Amino acid sequence: MSDPITSPTNPQIKELVRLRDRRHRDRSGAFVVEGYRAVSRAVDANIELERLYISPDLFLGPNEDQLIDRVAGAGTPVIEVAVEPFRKAAYRDRPEGLLAVARQFDTTFDSLALPTDPLVLVVEAIEKPGNLGTMLRTADAAGCAAVIVCDPTTDPFNPNVVRASTGMLFVVPLAVVSTEETIRWLRERAITTFATTPEAETLHTDAALTGGVAIVVGTEQYGLSDSWLDGADHRIRIPMAGTADSLNAAMAAGITLFEAVRQRDAGRLPDSDSTGM
Amino acid sequence: MSDPITSPTNPQIKELVRLRDRRHRDRSGAFVVEGYRAVSRAVDANIELERLYISPDLFLGPNEDQLIDRVAGAGTPVIEVAVEPFRKAAYRDRPEGLLAVARQFDTTFDSLALPTDPLVLVVEAIEKPGNLGTMLRTADAAGCAAVIVCDPTTDPFNPNVVRASTGMLFVVPLAVVSTEETIRWLRERAITTFATTPEAETLHTDAALTGGVAIVVGTEQYGLSDSWLDGADHRIRIPMAGTADSLNAAMAAGITLFEAVRQRDAGRLPDSDSTGM
Repeated sequence: MSDPITSPTNPQIKELVRLRDRRHRDRSGAFVVEGYRAVSRAVDANIELERLYISPDLFLGPNEDQLIDRVAGAGTPVIEVAVEPFRKAAYRDRPEGLLAVARQFDTTFDSLALPTDPLVLVVEAIEKPGNLGTMLRTADAAGCAAVIVCDPTTDPFNPNVVRASTGMLFVVPLAVVSTEETIRWLRERAITTFATTPEAETLHTDAALTGGVAIVVGTEQYGLSDSWLDGADHRIRIPMAGTADSLNAAMAAGITLFEAVRQRDAGRLPDSDSTGM
Repeated sequence: MSDPITSPTNPQIKELVRLRDRRHRDRSGAFVVEGYRAVSRAVDANIELERLYISPDLFLGPNEDQLIDRVAGAGTPVIEVAVEPFRKAAYRDRPEGLLAVARQFDTTFDSLALPTDPLVLVVEAIEKPGNLGTMLRTADAAGCAAVIVCDPTTDPFNPNVVRASTGMLFVVPLAVVSTEETIRWLRERAITTFATTPEAETLHTDAALTGGVAIVVGTEQYGLSDSWLDGADHRIRIPMAGTADSLNAAMAAGITLFEAVRQRDAGRLPDSDSTGM
């Protein structure tokens, strides 16, 4: 291991801070992965790590050493950092003493390999990194074969995406592409598209969400673009019983995805683990 | 209208900043409502406003004057604030020039009046204000008769709860009470309780969520307490298809609530507005 970093003005600390900035991430092709859970999941998913920074005085649990050994064993440089400069580099209020710099991975359609009858989540023009992260986490739980992000104003390597996804950014197959390309790509694969919009007549629970299906969700503020509203095969809506006129965008995605899960599971044989109530 | 506030060190600005602190909120019995949407919804819901601070240079839309007239017409003092001190008082990064101080309202069981066969959301030990706010917003959309928050570490008057709830904090009947009281209170009303836990055998979609039903959700990190796991009538789980072992707590609440909505709507006559696909 090289000498520990003790100064908050060390160039490597400054570089870590700069990686919070999207332009710098885009230029360098790198991004930051922070905390035990996210770093382990990046390692499990074979994400290429350039460097791992550790600050042992901040470790929370007994498993950090094993994770560090795995990373070092794969040839990744491990650099010790004193608490003060580590806090400066860390994005979280309560840093856990682990911070990796990773290479950005391919997010073109080439990175997707769909199974038969996939369940796909499509998200358009998303702005809030926390919402994108929550959607990735939820898509993983719903067994989505892919998440396609169309024309976003946030990039998937934003530290808040990494955090809110609880590392599922490294697990769920992801493409970041344009709406036009996505409509064409899904059509070529005969995947039925369902645009979610409050103006739809059909409830999400009345639509047949089995087979190859893409659920398309827009932004909270502006909804879906006309390209999707006109280009999707069907429009569906979640029923609203209350005063508010909308759900959080990630929530709308999750509710629709798990309705698809319900319909798809209903077509299968009962699981031997499950019992009636 | 009194003289405008021009200094960031004005005592009223300092008081607004102090209201971010829970102890000060608890002592004063007041809380802050920020932005056009939240202030309008507070007014619509007859929340008692003590004062309204306005900074017209920050207004975003054409409707602010009408809202100010409504507030002033009800006898609430309206105080103009220059941009600099307003920015200091505001909680948001991009303040909208409207900030009200409101009286905290009753959150005991006395504030709840349940209809027949209510759908209730119970949340235990919640920590993250944003999650509580999202749950209130989602509970409104699902038509919940009440949200009961048991033994929280956040208070519902936290500015992030107000914000994430998009004002539904003022709309959804809310009680903040203890787990023990809640179990007793629901039992007395013959409301069936469903504890959501990954250890349950029954899927949420296989449980009968019609009639008087309370969905009980715990924290992401620790789940539900033994009081709920042992005290609830049934345990249910959302199926997990992916790598991650859990959903965001608000997401788990929303997915379960909207499964209840589906089952409850299925028992009704079809809506004349809805058409098949």
